[in-house]
Amino acid sequence: MLRAFFMPEIQEDNIMKLEKLVGDRFKERPSDCQIDSHAIMVRGGYIKYMANGIFSSYAPTKRITKKIEQIIREEMDKIDGQEVQFPVVMPASLWQESGRYESIGSELLRFTDRNRMPMVLGMTHEEAAVHLVREYGKSYTKYPFMIYQIQTKFRDEARPRGGLIRVREFTMKDAYSFHTSQEDLEQYYDKCHKAYENIFRRAGVPEVISVKSDSGMMGGSISHEFMLLTPVGEDTIASCHECGFNANMEAADSIIENTRDEVSAPMELVHTPNIHTIEEICDFLHTPKEKSCKAVVYQRNADDSYVVVFTRGDIDVNETKLRNFLGCEIHPAVITEECGLNAGYIGPVGLPENMTVLFDTSLQNTNNLSCGANKEEYHYTGLDIDRDCANVEYHDFAKILDGGICPNCHKHSISISRGIEVGNIFQLGTKYTKTMGMTYLDSNGEEKTPIMGCYGIGVGRLAASVCEAHHDDYGPIWPMPIAPWQVHICAVRSDDADVKACADKLYDTLQNAGAEVIYDDRQVSAGVMFSDADLLGVPLRVVVSPRNLKDNCCEISARDKSFSYKVPVEETADKVQELIKELMAKFND
Amino acid sequence: MLRAFFMPEIQEDNIMKLEKLVGDRFKERPSDCQIDSHAIMVRGGYIKYMANGIFSSYAPTKRITKKIEQIIREEMDKIDGQEVQFPVVMPASLWQESGRYESIGSELLRFTDRNRMPMVLGMTHEEAAVHLVREYGKSYTKYPFMIYQIQTKFRDEARPRGGLIRVREFTMKDAYSFHTSQEDLEQYYDKCHKAYENIFRRAGVPEVISVKSDSGMMGGSISHEFMLLTPVGEDTIASCHECGFNANMEAADSIIENTRDEVSAPMELVHTPNIHTIEEICDFLHTPKEKSCKAVVYQRNADDSYVVVFTRGDIDVNETKLRNFLGCEIHPAVITEECGLNAGYIGPVGLPENMTVLFDTSLQNTNNLSCGANKEEYHYTGLDIDRDCANVEYHDFAKILDGGICPNCHKHSISISRGIEVGNIFQLGTKYTKTMGMTYLDSNGEEKTPIMGCYGIGVGRLAASVCEAHHDDYGPIWPMPIAPWQVHICAVRSDDADVKACADKLYDTLQNAGAEVIYDDRQVSAGVMFSDADLLGVPLRVVVSPRNLKDNCCEISARDKSFSYKVPVEETADKVQELIKELMAKFND
Repeated sequence: MLRAFFMPEIQEDNIMKLEKLVGDRFKERPSDCQIDSHAIMVRGGYIKYMANGIFSSYAPTKRITKKIEQIIREEMDKIDGQEVQFPVVMPASLWQESGRYESIGSELLRFTDRNRMPMVLGMTHEEAAVHLVREYGKSYTKYPFMIYQIQTKFRDEARPRGGLIRVREFTMKDAYSFHTSQEDLEQYYDKCHKAYENIFRRAGVPEVISVKSDSGMMGGSISHEFMLLTPVGEDTIASCHECGFNANMEAADSIIENTRDEVSAPMELVHTPNIHTIEEICDFLHTPKEKSCKAVVYQRNADDSYVVVFTRGDIDVNETKLRNFLGCEIHPAVITEECGLNAGYIGPVGLPENMTVLFDTSLQNTNNLSCGANKEEYHYTGLDIDRDCANVEYHDFAKILDGGICPNCHKHSISISRGIEVGNIFQLGTKYTKTMGMTYLDSNGEEKTPIMGCYGIGVGRLAASVCEAHHDDYGPIWPMPIAPWQVHICAVRSDDADVKACADKLYDTLQNAGAEVIYDDRQVSAGVMFSDADLLGVPLRVVVSPRNLKDNCCEISARDKSFSYKVPVEETADKVQELIKELMAKFND
Repeated sequence: MLRAFFMPEIQEDNIMKLEKLVGDRFKERPSDCQIDSHAIMVRGGYIKYMANGIFSSYAPTKRITKKIEQIIREEMDKIDGQEVQFPVVMPASLWQESGRYESIGSELLRFTDRNRMPMVLGMTHEEAAVHLVREYGKSYTKYPFMIYQIQTKFRDEARPRGGLIRVREFTMKDAYSFHTSQEDLEQYYDKCHKAYENIFRRAGVPEVISVKSDSGMMGGSISHEFMLLTPVGEDTIASCHECGFNANMEAADSIIENTRDEVSAPMELVHTPNIHTIEEICDFLHTPKEKSCKAVVYQRNADDSYVVVFTRGDIDVNETKLRNFLGCEIHPAVITEECGLNAGYIGPVGLPENMTVLFDTSLQNTNNLSCGANKEEYHYTGLDIDRDCANVEYHDFAKILDGGICPNCHKHSISISRGIEVGNIFQLGTKYTKTMGMTYLDSNGEEKTPIMGCYGIGVGRLAASVCEAHHDDYGPIWPMPIAPWQVHICAVRSDDADVKACADKLYDTLQNAGAEVIYDDRQVSAGVMFSDADLLGVPLRVVVSPRNLKDNCCEISARDKSFSYKVPVEETADKVQELIKELMAKFND
């Protein structure tokens, strides 16, 4: 793994005085920032709001994202990726080919150009990838191959939030691989999974975990998300700490074990005035929620037809599973007088005929349940679904329970946590190649459809997530491999000639040695200096001050407070270089 | 100029077999390619058309543009630039502040987002730059500073053409500097001019020249364009090879020296049936074109009012100068019966009163001219404008003439050539800071408006221009500093075990030494191999073949045919490395 020594001399921009750094830093937490990383990145001069979900980035952010991009690039190249570039603006016709022009909602920004041609802004590039290679990939001998880009994307999110965590415009690395067999895809998928682990480790966040996920609008079957665990994450993750199982809540199988009572009581109609919720009926009957049958009603977006899902009283519906089962979009139902449903009294016996009725596996092997009687102010007790309802099939529509049974080891219990999705990988199958008519001739001259995988990482979101996962009250604590600078020199009392001379020399020495230094020689108080340094979050700080110089020392400390040394002036540069190497090596394998 | 030695090991993607390179190469020139570089970039697997003016790029292009971007970045950092990033999608409100939302035509792509907010796609980022720094730049102590980005832009061109030469979506480096005085701007402008010279030299095109240009829609006064001279260029350049003057035709002052005849004849009406053009009237009267007065008629876009420009018969109107003089957009006139003009017979005497009448300096100091008589089938002879027309002022509305007088040295003559604009620099003045309300307090506490400069380079256009300027019939001849690879190994007859072993070893040795190698070990004919190599345009080629090996040699040749050596096998790797260094050093200063 050598560097190309013939390359023109690269002049890293490693020369910077804090005084010249464009961007304001301030103390007050902006009132519109809900999460810490957002507040820190505004307070530290990292980003500037331009419009809802649209930001400009100042130099520190750009320095961080360039390092992240370089790490990604190296790992993609290692697994034989070829960097290409797709357009941001694409003709609608390409998206019509795949069917996504119709199937994706208003996140896909559609517009017309000066000639009234319908266009879209790229929110992902499966179509563009197939377009680029469908002539190239005509023979099996060309496979497998992978192309990737690092490019701007636009997704017209309804609710951008959290600074760079969920934006409308963002930079993403997206990769697309093409294969002639499912086995080959799976092999490559595993290689890519490993490359992602390398990327997150090298970017200083080895704690990122991969979780089984739902493939959603991307199509395909198997997929994983890479999650940085943090309480402010938008995603919910089910983990088994014993067997190592991790899945997005949306994709985690729910396993419920019921025991039937020995005797099934007969169904009885009970007058239940003013009782609507599961809590109320269980209180009223003095039974646990596990002994009730809950109804949750949805409507299909397309025709507003009703879908009634029954679950055990303590179990919630996982809408992703329901959507995947139905194969269509749904929304919570509006229950009108005409529809034949009695809100608060809905049960599986005596429902109107014109609706889809589904039973969750949490109701399997139950009896003696309470449920709505489909009649104002009445419930049943003694429900035994297998006895009282016809043609019942059970499917998994349930949100997995915190403390529930691990669907992997079937032994230990699940715990629930939250995370930010910083990357994802998908086995796409032939969804795009088939719709877009990409084929190849196999070794027998037969026409076949290639199989695709796709692999994304949000660059800005990763930067913001690292900030969210690694910060204190005063600012971010950037890991060395992606820190905007490696060392921050504070010349406290730079009006003192000795301080200035010592700090200048240290700055020059480190710079000449190739370290990335930010140098604060402003004539401001130590307080201002240190709070600015905290906001820039550079891993190593060197303080040159009259007090330290009295002992012929500089003070080297870690932003994460893990160490602080007084080092003789003449040894400081060497010590700093040694520490940079050490902090970098932590994230190598 | 050291490299940051602490950086994580960089794994250049210098390992590539031609067999695995995604993209098709072929011989036939595509019929829709008007210029060579476009044809070559399609034939060589560099770009793929997606929509009018919108292309995807394959790996070779991406490798070239990344190198160009890195050179640009280094030179921008050297002049204290800070790399930032602006959004591609911006709120219309920002462009309303500067007034450009109204003043720019349909090249600015406008649309609304899901919430009906009007948005634009960034075609340039002056507004975004002011938005990013207007709070930061509140005190004179912060100045000067420069921010830049390398980012995707979209300009909805009416006529994209020439592959990557004129596209709608493109990658551009755009830089913005902020100053407290015109002198400071000018000093910085000169520094940037020098940085641009470095960039083009280091990118392997030292022949790029800077020309004085018109500032157009950017506002401001002084500006320069950087031109790569080539006959297919869209721009016309006036140069004086003696004094070194270079200007875009649009911005070149026209200098015409006339000598009046001693006697001014009286005006006489001449019957000229079926005579409409200057050529016809001069033939008819047996006078040279210099002795005629030509009328060119325009209409203002806003209200269709007429503007009549008179020039000497052999001189054409420079519409840019006219537009700048009028301060508005114009178009060639539609001459209707009602307007009072007689097409073919328009002259300065007896024109309708309701139109703007302008005289070009080419008519200064003339007499005894022929001109239209504003009457069907009649011309005048003996026109002496100063005698026959009232209140005449002369302004420069003329296209400079090939062979005309140099407006700089006033001694030598101008020659006209064509070029592609690959970069530009502008002294913007306060156009954006004033309209957008950016101010700072000077050292006396007075509120002032900062002065801006802006500086652009089109990355993809530069790559295509280099190809246009450096190619032969078989493909591009990339200069070493931006070539997609540095050396191309052809193993001719790789089924021969000795050839394969020798080529494999050479590939490994060069790779380990850090060279960027593309390796062709396909079992194809030498013809196919060499024409593919020509299309990839890699500066150095090493041929390993049974014939060469018989003499224990490899053949090293230059893509530009400047040399070809037979080198003993064991010396080949060293010789290649030496040549790479040599070809790189050519472009260093």
